Amino acid sequence: MRIGIFGGGQLARMLTQAAITLGLETVIFERFADSPAGRLTRREVVGAWDDTEALTRFAEQCDLVTLENEFVDATILATLEDRGLPVFPTAATVAVVQDKLTQKERIAAAGLSVPAFQGVASPDEVLQAGQILGWPMVLKARRNGYDGYGNATLRTAEEVGPAWERLSKGGNALLVEAWVPFVRELAVMVVRGRTGETKAYPVVETVQRDHICHVVRVPAPLSPAEANRATELAVNAVRAVDGIGIFGVELFALPDGRMQYNEMAPRPHNSGHYTIEACVCSQFENHIRAVLGWPLGEVRLREPAAVMINLLGQRNGVVKPEALEGALAIPGAHVHLYGKREVRIGRKMGHVTAYGATLAEAEARARQATDLVAI
Amino acid sequence: MRIGIFGGGQLARMLTQAAITLGLETVIFERFADSPAGRLTRREVVGAWDDTEALTRFAEQCDLVTLENEFVDATILATLEDRGLPVFPTAATVAVVQDKLTQKERIAAAGLSVPAFQGVASPDEVLQAGQILGWPMVLKARRNGYDGYGNATLRTAEEVGPAWERLSKGGNALLVEAWVPFVRELAVMVVRGRTGETKAYPVVETVQRDHICHVVRVPAPLSPAEANRATELAVNAVRAVDGIGIFGVELFALPDGRMQYNEMAPRPHNSGHYTIEACVCSQFENHIRAVLGWPLGEVRLREPAAVMINLLGQRNGVVKPEALEGALAIPGAHVHLYGKREVRIGRKMGHVTAYGATLAEAEARARQATDLVAI
Repeated sequence: MRIGIFGGGQLARMLTQAAITLGLETVIFERFADSPAGRLTRREVVGAWDDTEALTRFAEQCDLVTLENEFVDATILATLEDRGLPVFPTAATVAVVQDKLTQKERIAAAGLSVPAFQGVASPDEVLQAGQILGWPMVLKARRNGYDGYGNATLRTAEEVGPAWERLSKGGNALLVEAWVPFVRELAVMVVRGRTGETKAYPVVETVQRDHICHVVRVPAPLSPAEANRATELAVNAVRAVDGIGIFGVELFALPDGRMQYNEMAPRPHNSGHYTIEACVCSQFENHIRAVLGWPLGEVRLREPAAVMINLLGQRNGVVKPEALEGALAIPGAHVHLYGKREVRIGRKMGHVTAYGATLAEAEARARQATDLVAI
Repeated sequence: MRIGIFGGGQLARMLTQAAITLGLETVIFERFADSPAGRLTRREVVGAWDDTEALTRFAEQCDLVTLENEFVDATILATLEDRGLPVFPTAATVAVVQDKLTQKERIAAAGLSVPAFQGVASPDEVLQAGQILGWPMVLKARRNGYDGYGNATLRTAEEVGPAWERLSKGGNALLVEAWVPFVRELAVMVVRGRTGETKAYPVVETVQRDHICHVVRVPAPLSPAEANRATELAVNAVRAVDGIGIFGVELFALPDGRMQYNEMAPRPHNSGHYTIEACVCSQFENHIRAVLGWPLGEVRLREPAAVMINLLGQRNGVVKPEALEGALAIPGAHVHLYGKREVRIGRKMGHVTAYGATLAEAEARARQATDLVAI
């Protein structure tokens, strides 16, 4: 049984690690050779996803196809489905999700709480939207944005012109969203199987730094009612897009305790890395179980609290494996390196997960270890 | 940083999985291509370990060398050390351990409790030994025995001839050991770093079936004093052979609560597979930390109790990945398949680990899952 993955980065790598344990193999389709995941399989297809010859070579080796990011064009996924190859999440789901405008239209149509948004075709339309949504607003590329790339916060009308120019470069379509005065950013990993069986991992708090996920705390410090509302919203959002596989759903917690939808990723998610050690079944194994139509694994926390911190590149150059050595001396810290050959400032190079009796204890351990990684 | 491994079976595979998480790579040296571990790396060397050309090709790709079994001749390891390549466990350690006679001589010389034994050069010497050791005795090949291959229990003098013929075939040297009226078989995984730092995992009870490790229960049902005696014996045994890396030490628990040494494996061991999910740091990650000279990870149990059961082949033929599907429905059971293409009756194909509040709960879960695997 061979599972094809669009993409060969750290998410494909951790999916491959989970597949190995289950006796399965992955086929990695990535633009360059020797990717973090490509290195773990004999079946590495190097090429562009829209290169028909490479796509065929990939498809012929797979029993089933999935993805590690939402940038693969849904029309490419549809051609695989047309050949009779199972693709999960489906081309239809990815088509809706990979465009933030259609994604939010779908969520709003399902009656779920989402900040006001609208598509905009010109700077003038952004200014008009400002009359309705109020300032500040967030201007976003409809497609291919990640880690803050493709986003701009507009505080005043004067900021519209430069932001438009930057984000619309190359013909990107844009949307604007109302600014949300959130008190916390939350995320929920939801896994939904081919049979419709659905499970939600505990709600986590995510702390961004420079638009990159920096710290994840679980369980999020919420009342049970708030946690239930967050979970329900996330599960309903995945159902609204008919999602199959693991989904990372990002939410805003409002000052009055209500929850609002932010966005989703139709794949394993940085906010779910803690599940590898802290939950019974990881987001990666559960994704594989879900797309194969196998029974889902337990999503419960094995420890009272866990904290994950990303390891971001601190310099530009070649990675040295000894980077980890100091951090390994911290009891209970689980250190992960993604095997990227080159480090760049701010690049996601790995992560640390620690658990403990309290969030404070877990976070102290995770920070202690993170501080000792010299990458 | 590339770690070379002699052997490409399930132990090398699980070592490779641990290496991946730490951002390291392995080089796999196995007699046949597409081995369970060889499949996970671009650096697979196919050939016989005593083939100088293949050995050189292997050595040139490695920063450090280790092994997944003790059948690699220590003289081969010594040639690598002579080239300046670090090898752990060292050639000197492997030389002592891979011969059960010299292994036991070393353990006895260290003043540790070991059943009476002696080398035997003929059936007559076996019969003479019977006068001293008493019947039954165990006749063993000094080298290359595993899972009961290379062992014979001699109940009477009449059984000596046929057993001698079978075990000495091909010129194998043999030894005899006194039969031990044990009440339990125990094992302790001991990890010892290049700095001498040593940690012992909890004592486990092992249950053999047809000479193959079948069930592992942790913690072993012992009094604290018994557990301490077992741990101390195991740690001292590893020190006695100057072991570096992870070692599986098998012990006998005697009716009066004393412990006796049985044998050791200078590598990850079947009785330590439970550590992947049930301990903070697995035997595989700790082996890698130890041989690299990195700080050792925590060996404590994360759960009150855990049970591992081996998945043995039930037929001869090709493995079907769906074999696992039923077992995955059992909550809290972690199912591992080793990726062997062919199943044979009795072949180790994978294992299940389950944990719980009690040994009984963990074992019930593990058995439920194991019963649902159709391999």
